[in-house]
Amino acid sequence: MTTPPVRPKRATVHDVAQEAGVSRGTVSRYVNGDRYVSATAREAIEAAIAKVGYVPNTAARNLVMQRSQAVGFIVHEPHSLFIEDPNIGEILLGANAALSEADHQMAVLIADTGRDTDRVARYLSGGFVDGVIIVSARANDPITRVVERLQLPAAYVGHPPGASSASFVVIDNLGSARAITARLVETGRRRIGMIAAALDRDSGSDRLAGFREALGERFDDRLVEPVPLYSYSAGRDGMQALLARSPDIDGVFAASDAVAAGAVEALRAAGRRVPEDVGVVGFDDSAWARRTLPALSTVRQPAARLGAEAARLVLDRIGGAPGGAEVMLECETVWRESA
Amino acid sequence: MTTPPVRPKRATVHDVAQEAGVSRGTVSRYVNGDRYVSATAREAIEAAIAKVGYVPNTAARNLVMQRSQAVGFIVHEPHSLFIEDPNIGEILLGANAALSEADHQMAVLIADTGRDTDRVARYLSGGFVDGVIIVSARANDPITRVVERLQLPAAYVGHPPGASSASFVVIDNLGSARAITARLVETGRRRIGMIAAALDRDSGSDRLAGFREALGERFDDRLVEPVPLYSYSAGRDGMQALLARSPDIDGVFAASDAVAAGAVEALRAAGRRVPEDVGVVGFDDSAWARRTLPALSTVRQPAARLGAEAARLVLDRIGGAPGGAEVMLECETVWRESA
Repeated sequence: MTTPPVRPKRATVHDVAQEAGVSRGTVSRYVNGDRYVSATAREAIEAAIAKVGYVPNTAARNLVMQRSQAVGFIVHEPHSLFIEDPNIGEILLGANAALSEADHQMAVLIADTGRDTDRVARYLSGGFVDGVIIVSARANDPITRVVERLQLPAAYVGHPPGASSASFVVIDNLGSARAITARLVETGRRRIGMIAAALDRDSGSDRLAGFREALGERFDDRLVEPVPLYSYSAGRDGMQALLARSPDIDGVFAASDAVAAGAVEALRAAGRRVPEDVGVVGFDDSAWARRTLPALSTVRQPAARLGAEAARLVLDRIGGAPGGAEVMLECETVWRESA
Repeated sequence: MTTPPVRPKRATVHDVAQEAGVSRGTVSRYVNGDRYVSATAREAIEAAIAKVGYVPNTAARNLVMQRSQAVGFIVHEPHSLFIEDPNIGEILLGANAALSEADHQMAVLIADTGRDTDRVARYLSGGFVDGVIIVSARANDPITRVVERLQLPAAYVGHPPGASSASFVVIDNLGSARAITARLVETGRRRIGMIAAALDRDSGSDRLAGFREALGERFDDRLVEPVPLYSYSAGRDGMQALLARSPDIDGVFAASDAVAAGAVEALRAAGRRVPEDVGVVGFDDSAWARRTLPALSTVRQPAARLGAEAARLVLDRIGGAPGGAEVMLECETVWRESA
C-alpha cells in the first residue's frame, strides 16, 4: 500500500516499519486487517504506530479498493418511534452482530427530517458505505429512490414498492394478523375493531388485510380506526375514537404492542376492564407486551433474526449476488392475559 | 474538483456538465452542497446525474479536503441497555438534530463486543469521521485510548477518567442524587437503601456519593446493593437482595428509572406496597417513570440537551477549539406517586 503524501509531515508505513523493525509488507498486512501477522510483530507495530503517530489512510485505500467495509443502517423513523419501538433496537443489534461476524462496520444513519434525508442520500452516494440496510421505508421514499439510482447493494426489512433491485426480508404480516384475529374471534367476541397504524407501509396495510380476511362477512369498516404511527399515543387516541363511535366494542386488534398499550390505557380511563369487558391483542411481542397490565396477547416478531437476515442479504449483494431475493420469516401467536 | 479516473468508464463531472448544459463549476458547486445553484440548474444537473449515472466521489474529495463532514456517535452498551435505556435514544436524537443543523452526517457505531470495539477503533482511524461523540464510556475504555492516541476531536457525555484532550458534557449526578435522597428522608423513611448500578462509570459512582452525602451519619453500607447495569432486571435482582438482607427497609433510591421499575416489581412480588410500605425513587425521568405503576418520583435528566451540547462541543473541536471544555447541565427533582 502506498499512501499519497497529503500533508508533508504525515507518518508513513515506511516510518512504522523502520520503528518496528519489520518489513513494510508486514505493516501493510497489519493495517489491512490480515490475520497472518505474528503476535510479536503485531505488538511491535502497535507500539511503533503509537510512537510515530501513523494514521492508516483508509480513504486512500478505499479509493483504490472501492470498498469501505462499512454498511449503512437507515433508521427511517420520526423521533418518538425510535424510542418507543423496541423492535428497531433488536433488528439493529441483530444486523450489527451479523455484520461484525463478517468484519464489516455498521453505521446507523438517522433520517428524522427532510434535511436528514437529503444529507443521508448524499452520504450514500459518497462511497462511505458498500451497501445499506433499510427498515421501515415508506412508499416513494426519497432514500429508496437514491439507492435505486445508485444501484447501491441494499436489503430492506419490509418490502416497500419501488425498490426493485434490492433484496428483502419480511415477516408474514397478513397471515399473522389473520391468525391472531381468528383467535380473538374464538374467545367469543362479537364486535371486534382494529386500530390500524401506518397504512402507508406494507406492514400496516398487510395487517389490516389479515384482520379483514379473518372476519370475513363480519368485517365492519366503521370498527377500523386508522392512526398514523405505531405508537402508544396513537393507540390511546385510536381507542378513544373507537369507543366514541362504537360503545359496544368488545374486542380490539391493535397493530402493534405500543398501540395496544395505549389502547389499554384509554380503556382503563373509560372504565372498561381488560380482558373482562374488552379483549385486546397486539403485534410484535416487544418489551411493551410483558410490561403492560394485563400482559398482552400478541404476535411474536423475530426481530433479531430480521436484522441478521438483512445483513446476510446485503453482504450477498455486495459480493455480487443478484438482487430480488425475498426471505419471509414466520411469526407465532403468544397468548397472555389481555384477551 | 477533479475526480481521479478510478474505473475507465466512470462518469465524470464533465459528462454531467455536458448533459445538463451547464458549466463544470456549477456541477461542482452542486455536488459540494453549495446553496448558490439556481433551481433550474439544479433540476438539469439532477436529471443529468441520473442519466449518465454519475456518483460524486466523496472519498476522493475527502482525501484532498481531509474532511468527511461526518461525526461518529458511539453507543457503548451491551445489548439489553441499548433497548432498555430510553435516554440513549433521546441523547442520540438531540445530537443528530444539532449535527444536521450544521450539515454534518451522524453515523452511530455500536460497540457491543470486543470485536466490535477493535473494528470501531479501526474505523475511527480511517478518516470516515471528523470527530466523535461518546456516551457511557467506562474507565480504561479501549475506544477512549484510540481517540486519545489519534487526537480525534471528541465530546463525551459523561467524564470517564483518561480522556484528557476531549470536551465533556455532564449532568450533576452527585448533587441530583443528594437532592432526591434528602427529599426521600423528608417523607419520614428511616431505613433507606440504594440499588447502586454501574459503579465503574462516573454517573454510577457519583450517584452513590450523593446518596451517601445526603444520609450522613445514617448511611449504612449494608443497605447498598451494587448491580452491574442500569437495567430492569438488575433492579429486580438488587431489590430482592436488599429485602433478603434488610426486611425492615422502607425507602429505596434506585440509580435509574429502569432499575426502579424492576425494584417496584420485586416489591410487588414480595407483597410490599409502594409507596405505603416502601418509598421508591429513580433517576432519569425516562418513559419508564411515567409507565411504572405507581408513577416514579425521579430526577429529570435533560437527555436531548445533553446530545445537542455534545454535538456543539465536537463541532467546536473540529473547528479548532481547544479540548478540555466541560459543560454541566442541571437536573430537577420530579415528585410523583412512588414516594
